[in-house]
Amino acid sequence: MPVEGSTAAAGVLRESRPTPGLRYARPVSRATFLFSSPDRPGLVARLAGFFSELGLNIVEASNYTDLHGERGSSRFYMRLVVDLAGLSLPRAQERLAGSATRAAMETRFAEEIAGPLGGEWTIGYDDRVARVAVLVTKDPTCLYDLALRQRQGDLPCEIALVISNHPTLEAAAQSFRIPFYALPITKETKPQQEAQVLELLRKHDVDLVVLARYMQVLSDDFLGAAPPVINIHHGFLPAFQGAKPYHQAHARGVKLIGATAHYATKDLDEGPIIEQDVERITHAMGPEELVRVGRDVERVVLARAVRAHLERRVIVEGRRTFVL
Amino acid sequence: MPVEGSTAAAGVLRESRPTPGLRYARPVSRATFLFSSPDRPGLVARLAGFFSELGLNIVEASNYTDLHGERGSSRFYMRLVVDLAGLSLPRAQERLAGSATRAAMETRFAEEIAGPLGGEWTIGYDDRVARVAVLVTKDPTCLYDLALRQRQGDLPCEIALVISNHPTLEAAAQSFRIPFYALPITKETKPQQEAQVLELLRKHDVDLVVLARYMQVLSDDFLGAAPPVINIHHGFLPAFQGAKPYHQAHARGVKLIGATAHYATKDLDEGPIIEQDVERITHAMGPEELVRVGRDVERVVLARAVRAHLERRVIVEGRRTFVL
Amino acid sequence: MPVEGSTAAAGVLRESRPTPGLRYARPVSRATFLFSSPDRPGLVARLAGFFSELGLNIVEASNYTDLHGERGSSRFYMRLVVDLAGLSLPRAQERLAGSATRAAMETRFAEEIAGPLGGEWTIGYDDRVARVAVLVTKDPTCLYDLALRQRQGDLPCEIALVISNHPTLEAAAQSFRIPFYALPITKETKPQQEAQVLELLRKHDVDLVVLARYMQVLSDDFLGAAPPVINIHHGFLPAFQGAKPYHQAHARGVKLIGATAHYATKDLDEGPIIEQDVERITHAMGPEELVRVGRDVERVVLARAVRAHLERRVIVEGRRTFVL
Amino acid sequence: MPVEGSTAAAGVLRESRPTPGLRYARPVSRATFLFSSPDRPGLVARLAGFFSELGLNIVEASNYTDLHGERGSSRFYMRLVVDLAGLSLPRAQERLAGSATRAAMETRFAEEIAGPLGGEWTIGYDDRVARVAVLVTKDPTCLYDLALRQRQGDLPCEIALVISNHPTLEAAAQSFRIPFYALPITKETKPQQEAQVLELLRKHDVDLVVLARYMQVLSDDFLGAAPPVINIHHGFLPAFQGAKPYHQAHARGVKLIGATAHYATKDLDEGPIIEQDVERITHAMGPEELVRVGRDVERVVLARAVRAHLERRVIVEGRRTFVL
Repeated sequence: MPVEGSTAAAGVLRESRPTPGLRYARPVSRATFLFSSPDRPGLVARLAGFFSELGLNIVEASNYTDLHGERGSSRFYMRLVVDLAGLSLPRAQERLAGSATRAAMETRFAEEIAGPLGGEWTIGYDDRVARVAVLVTKDPTCLYDLALRQRQGDLPCEIALVISNHPTLEAAAQSFRIPFYALPITKETKPQQEAQVLELLRKHDVDLVVLARYMQVLSDDFLGAAPPVINIHHGFLPAFQGAKPYHQAHARGVKLIGATAHYATKDLDEGPIIEQDVERITHAMGPEELVRVGRDVERVVLARAVRAHLERRVIVEGRRTFVL
Repeated sequence: MPVEGSTAAAGVLRESRPTPGLRYARPVSRATFLFSSPDRPGLVARLAGFFSELGLNIVEASNYTDLHGERGSSRFYMRLVVDLAGLSLPRAQERLAGSATRAAMETRFAEEIAGPLGGEWTIGYDDRVARVAVLVTKDPTCLYDLALRQRQGDLPCEIALVISNHPTLEAAAQSFRIPFYALPITKETKPQQEAQVLELLRKHDVDLVVLARYMQVLSDDFLGAAPPVINIHHGFLPAFQGAKPYHQAHARGVKLIGATAHYATKDLDEGPIIEQDVERITHAMGPEELVRVGRDVERVVLARAVRAHLERRVIVEGRRTFVL
Repeated sequence: MPVEGSTAAAGVLRESRPTPGLRYARPVSRATFLFSSPDRPGLVARLAGFFSELGLNIVEASNYTDLHGERGSSRFYMRLVVDLAGLSLPRAQERLAGSATRAAMETRFAEEIAGPLGGEWTIGYDDRVARVAVLVTKDPTCLYDLALRQRQGDLPCEIALVISNHPTLEAAAQSFRIPFYALPITKETKPQQEAQVLELLRKHDVDLVVLARYMQVLSDDFLGAAPPVINIHHGFLPAFQGAKPYHQAHARGVKLIGATAHYATKDLDEGPIIEQDVERITHAMGPEELVRVGRDVERVVLARAVRAHLERRVIVEGRRTFVL
Repeated sequence: MPVEGSTAAAGVLRESRPTPGLRYARPVSRATFLFSSPDRPGLVARLAGFFSELGLNIVEASNYTDLHGERGSSRFYMRLVVDLAGLSLPRAQERLAGSATRAAMETRFAEEIAGPLGGEWTIGYDDRVARVAVLVTKDPTCLYDLALRQRQGDLPCEIALVISNHPTLEAAAQSFRIPFYALPITKETKPQQEAQVLELLRKHDVDLVVLARYMQVLSDDFLGAAPPVINIHHGFLPAFQGAKPYHQAHARGVKLIGATAHYATKDLDEGPIIEQDVERITHAMGPEELVRVGRDVERVVLARAVRAHLERRVIVEGRRTFVL
């Protein structure tokens, strides 16, 4: 990737995907912007221009204009990954009036871009590794799967702790040296247990909660206070909501079963879907065999969804998601 | 498949699959039994023994015992294909008391097997080619698909006629030399139109009705009077029942769309599912693009279901099907 | 998509996907650029800036930087769709020195962008509908499939003619009112037959040749003289090259069969792959049944590849393709 | 599944699938026969009759007649699962001349069935749990997957030991309390290392060796002396044989990558395929990302193949397998 002579004049705007294998081991810091606003001409140029003028190289970019949106008019969605190396160069210093910090960049973006365009946005820095809490009950499949992927560098996060309402999976968590907390729950103790969970999330500075077959419904209060929560539902939503989806699927006689990873919201099983997949079944499989077949779909779907969230690819819009 | 010397002594019970390529061009007649009964030990032996004693070779056989049934106890399902060549041999003559006809075989089966075992059964003969009516509205995809497969020998049937509530697809039907009937329908004329359709089905001696994107809900009366009806629903049932499933799927933000072929019953979209499949979609596809992607799933799913029905592989049990 | 007043100042760079349903019925002309060059910083800004300065709105854009390329260094690939309405506005007139034509735009692009960057590029205009020749032998599946999709507006092209070495499919072509030419071929007459085909391609002004189960190997001379040729191979390349891939697959005992759409090149079955897919099979399927199952994969894979080519999404790089 | 009184008279031949969830926890012993022979009429009746006369209930049965075989004529394949409870009843005592043992049953089967029919057969008893050795190098994915499935009752086996040429995965094996042996290997020490491995297999009474990403080619001598060996190849065989299949796939520009589980034979990557599957990829994925995507396919394919082998469903015929 030779940096040829006079390209500074043209700006160093660049859009590309980095070597995947190096993605989570890079020495240079990057910032990922997720932006959405009402659609209008010139949006890409305006966003790209902002970073170009700061001397920050755009490393990845993708965008989508939704003409079928819930808000009644076209809406623009963009993901931008910029290389922060440029923040220490004279150009950024100059443009940001001597204070070329991340905070100054964010303030300027809010004032020049998001404000005038009526946009909504978030930002993440890849040298601030996300901290994930995995909530489980007794089924180890998804926990092992997530822990193993994290170890192999496939999930850009740390698994900060595992919380369960049963002690069953303590050894599994410990084999990966992840702190494990057993917090039993009954109808009566639910508020207290949820408060304990929230306290642990705060203490461990958790950015994302993953329900990896946690067999409890979270209260609205909990969801209101917690970081984003991703749940794996072992059914092909919106079919087979609620309990025992595999038994429902068997009784209905469907020919495929599925799994759905979605953000948990106050309306159970109605949260925005991040990822889904299915597996073929036959009449010769009883509900127990569906459970076995379903496990393979569940863990892959959950892992894909968690990865997309951690790479800051997901924008939620009502009940839909845009995975950029 | 050499017929070796003294095999008569050992019985000529045989279970195998014939050469697929020859399946619909065989000179020898075959009968296909679909049988179900409460489960009990020895059922396979008893059914196989019946044909063995008649000197009829079993060409294909498969069975399944459902332990999770709706009727509250285990139930046995079996499909048997027998070679009728043996009906003309002395052994059958002897056993059927000189009247070795298909009717005599059926009577004996009812008396010796189905009656004592409390079984339900149907029979079909492959030299009696099924006659199919295809009902359409304006979308040609499934019609072309079925007609082409029939032409290529992949569907063991004749397409006796095409009926539509619009004249749009007349040329398509004619290009395959299939009689086409346009029977427009309005809210007021629905009873009369359905009566006309029924009359055509009777006149053309139709065994199976295929709703190949026929955009009308059939009345209970019609379904009660018509031969079996297979419908293709452009959604992954039981999700997205009713109208505009692709628009529903888009609004819900699912990541896969599907199609479902099922027997039409009085409860719309609740009929027993024969076959389903899905296709991956993205947030970047509007409802119109889902229609395009969905077409490829619909026609394949419909063709598989029609083929399974025509090969007499499908047993309906409540809301489930067993595809043997 | 409101065109607001003062956006000219910010440039009218826009990237979005149009309503798919409207894609092939738009009144406004668009140009699609496919561009590749050695990678360097600032390429997106430079390409986008070129059109922004001309006052041409960017309607779709996507790009990819390949770090694993065959040429030994990183290479940049971009697809840009621009709205040509701006060509008639004063800004374009001014920038193009009074001659705001397509030719002037192309010349300027070559001089200012492609030349200095060492880039390779092609351009297409969507009011110049591509003309396709479909070459067949006896199997009608892919021909019907392509004709039907074209009719339904799913393929942005005209099917200008069908050429075959057998008369079998004449009626099929005629039912879609497509001119049909039967040009029989023998070992001896191959050069003459190919010359006749080339002559027909020229006469019908063909932009793309689709081998829809054309059971002949094209000579190097033909491929050198013809427009781009897309072939459907009924095997999962690079496995099962050459003749009778289903029989090869059966003999090897694979558990999935596939189809591969690729550009035809002088090295048979070695051309750049555009699209592939597979279908599951079992040991119970003989070669003839593989043919039947395979047909469903073949036509879908071929249609996707032809569509990608016609939408100008495919860039060939050695034996690989980038589908943008 | 009520065992009714007088069923002996009708024979107790039964074919059904047991409750899957109970499959590996049943108190009653079962024997699984895998049988193949030249095809002839009456084979099913003859095999079923053998067990019927012994008073042994047939619990599962499936068969297939291959008309496309490598041996030049039709060949018959059958899998039979019989309930051994009947071995202790008078009928079996009588038929087996007072010695109603498993050995006597096997001898009788060889004399009455396999011998006269020229058949090949194997037998397994499900109260003799198979012992599996897992061979690994550094990649933990398949090891964790197999161990977890075994723990959850999805694989009817014990994992007797893990052998590796590197110490990397010792902790992983220990977390499942599986003995781990590190046996480093160099070109010079290969014969000795393989002898050590063979000695461990003998000592641990191993029935099946699973190469779970064991990055060594086994010698002919080793394969000749070892129990059956299942290998997972991270490519869609027969494409991409040999080393670095993901790099080969990337260079060839395929659009799907796959994994193949096969019995290891002297001809590397030419062994009979048990199971395969694929995953879609894009031009935007480098070889490293293919490795990540491929891992999900590999482990599922390997687990399915090992399960099929352990359930005694696989018959090898030349380079093909029949999975009954």
